[in-house]
Amino acid sequence: MTPYVAVIGASRPTAEDLVDAEAIGRGLAERGAIVVTGGRGGVMAAASRGAAEAGGVVVGLLPGLDRGEANEWVTVALTTGLGDLRNGLVARAADAVVAVGGAYGTLSEIALALQAATPVFGLHSWEIDGVRRVASPREAILAAFEAATAGTGHSGA
Amino acid sequence: MTPYVAVIGASRPTAEDLVDAEAIGRGLAERGAIVVTGGRGGVMAAASRGAAEAGGVVVGLLPGLDRGEANEWVTVALTTGLGDLRNGLVARAADAVVAVGGAYGTLSEIALALQAATPVFGLHSWEIDGVRRVASPREAILAAFEAATAGTGHSGA
Amino acid sequence: MTPYVAVIGASRPTAEDLVDAEAIGRGLAERGAIVVTGGRGGVMAAASRGAAEAGGVVVGLLPGLDRGEANEWVTVALTTGLGDLRNGLVARAADAVVAVGGAYGTLSEIALALQAATPVFGLHSWEIDGVRRVASPREAILAAFEAATAGTGHSGA
Amino acid sequence: MTPYVAVIGASRPTAEDLVDAEAIGRGLAERGAIVVTGGRGGVMAAASRGAAEAGGVVVGLLPGLDRGEANEWVTVALTTGLGDLRNGLVARAADAVVAVGGAYGTLSEIALALQAATPVFGLHSWEIDGVRRVASPREAILAAFEAATAGTGHSGA
Repeated sequence: MTPYVAVIGASRPTAEDLVDAEAIGRGLAERGAIVVTGGRGGVMAAASRGAAEAGGVVVGLLPGLDRGEANEWVTVALTTGLGDLRNGLVARAADAVVAVGGAYGTLSEIALALQAATPVFGLHSWEIDGVRRVASPREAILAAFEAATAGTGHSGA
Repeated sequence: MTPYVAVIGASRPTAEDLVDAEAIGRGLAERGAIVVTGGRGGVMAAASRGAAEAGGVVVGLLPGLDRGEANEWVTVALTTGLGDLRNGLVARAADAVVAVGGAYGTLSEIALALQAATPVFGLHSWEIDGVRRVASPREAILAAFEAATAGTGHSGA
Repeated sequence: MTPYVAVIGASRPTAEDLVDAEAIGRGLAERGAIVVTGGRGGVMAAASRGAAEAGGVVVGLLPGLDRGEANEWVTVALTTGLGDLRNGLVARAADAVVAVGGAYGTLSEIALALQAATPVFGLHSWEIDGVRRVASPREAILAAFEAATAGTGHSGA
Repeated sequence: MTPYVAVIGASRPTAEDLVDAEAIGRGLAERGAIVVTGGRGGVMAAASRGAAEAGGVVVGLLPGLDRGEANEWVTVALTTGLGDLRNGLVARAADAVVAVGGAYGTLSEIALALQAATPVFGLHSWEIDGVRRVASPREAILAAFEAATAGTGHSGA
C-alpha cells in the first residue's frame, strides 16, 4: 500500500523550516509516499517542491475555491472551499503527519490528527503531549515513513 | 446582538472541570448568551446543564447523525455527521470560546478559534500562546461575555 | 422528542412561495417543531418569520462567517463558513424537509435528504422521484410534522 | 493548466453506465485531464479504471475514513469522513462534471455543481435544467474536456 504522509507548517515559516520541509518532502517522495499538504506557501510549498522534484505525487488541499492558490509544485490541487476546516481533511487523509514549525493552523492539524490517533512527528514545532519530537529532516522522514507504512488507520485491510 | 459563547472541554473531565463548566454555562445564560457546545458528555453536558437550568438556549453541534447522542440539556441539537470536524463549526459559531480542561478535541477547537482570531479563555486548560488564562468560572464568564459582546467577528453590523 | 423540520427554497422566490413558506413556518412552530433553514432571504426568511412570530425556535445555518447574513427572524444563527455545503447540514439536521419552490441549492438539499432517507415534501418545487408532492401549506405542515415525529432517523431512542 | 473533470454516477449502475463511464474515464485521461470521483464502486470504479489504464491520475474522494473503501484504480485516495457531503467536494474540485446515470448522490453533485456554475454534462442521467445532455461517451469527453479547459472557475490566473 502507498503511504500518505502530511507535511504541515506555517505559511510564514523560518528559513530553517523551509530547508527542512523541502528535505522532508523529497525524502518521503523518494521512498514512494504520497505527500499531502494544505497546498499553499511556506512549509507547504517547500515540502511540495521537494516531493515534486523527486518525482512524487503532491496533493494540495486548498482552503478556497481558486486552484490558482496552489503552489506550483502541487501535482493534484483540490479546491475545497472549507477555509481552515480543510486542515482537518489534511489530517484525515494522512497515515502520518510531520509538523515543521507552524502556527495555529498547524496546531489544529496536529490536534485533529492526534484525536484520530494518527502519528504526529514534530520538527521544531508545537510541543504537545503525543507529538513525537524529531531532531532532523532525516529522522522525520524515517519515522513518518515507518509509521505510515505500519499504520492501519486508513489502510483498509 | 445576542452573544454566542462556546464552552468546550473533554468528554472525560475532572470533577473540578464539571463543577466549573456548569457554573460557566449558568453564568453565560443568565447574562443572555447563547451557549454553543459539542453537545455530548463531560464538560459539554455540564455547561449545557448550567445554561439550560438558567433558562438559556443551548446549541449542541453533534459529531454524528443520531440526535440521541445529545446530552439532555441541549435545547437545539444539530446532527452534523462531520465527526471531529464539527469542532471547527463550534469554534466558527462562537464570538468567544471558554475552554475548561480538555484533551485533543479541545485543543483543535482552541487552535481553530485562535486562527480565526476568536478570543479564547482557558480555565485549567491547554496553555497555548493566545489563550487568555482565567482563574475562576466567574472570571471566565465576565471575560468571555465581554469579549463576545464587543466582538465584531460574527456580529454583522 | 421535539421534531426538527427544514424549510428550504430559493433566496429569490415567487410571491406565492413567500406566502406559503411563512404559513408553513408558522404552522410548524405552532405544533412545536424546531424550524431549520439556511438562514438567509427569500423562502428562508419567510419561513423564519412565520415560525418566529409563532414563538418558535428558528435555526439558521449560514453559508458564510458573518452572523449579519442571517435574516432577522432567525433565533439561533450559526455561521458555518461552508458555503453551499451547508445545504447538506440543513438536510442532516432535519427529521423532515419541506421544499417550497427553489433553485439549485434547494435541489441539492432535496437530493442529500433523499440520499439520507429523510422524508421530503415539495410544494410547487422540484419534481424528483421520492419527493412527495403536497398541494397546500396546510398539507405540507401536517405531512412534514407527522413524518418528523414518526421518523427514527435522528431521534435517538 | 491541467483540467480536472469529475465523473459521477451511481454505485449500482446499469451495464451501459459502466461501459460508458469506463470509456469516458479513458478518454479524459488520454487528453491529460485529472479524473475526480467519489472513489467507490459502480460508475466511480469504471471511470477510474478507464482513466488509470490510460495512465492518468485518478482522485477518489472517499466518504469514510478507511482508504480500503477506494476502488483499485484510484491513484490518489483521500479519506474525508464527510459521508455524502464529500459529494460537494467532488463538485468543487472539478472544472467540469460528467454525470453517467446516477441516483440521489449523483443528483446532489449535479445540483451543487450547477449552483457553483460548473458545467455539467449528462449521459442518460438526471434531466435537470442546466445539465447539457450528451448522447455518447465521445461527446461527453469532448464537451467536458473543452469546458474544463476553457473554464475559469478554478483555474486561478
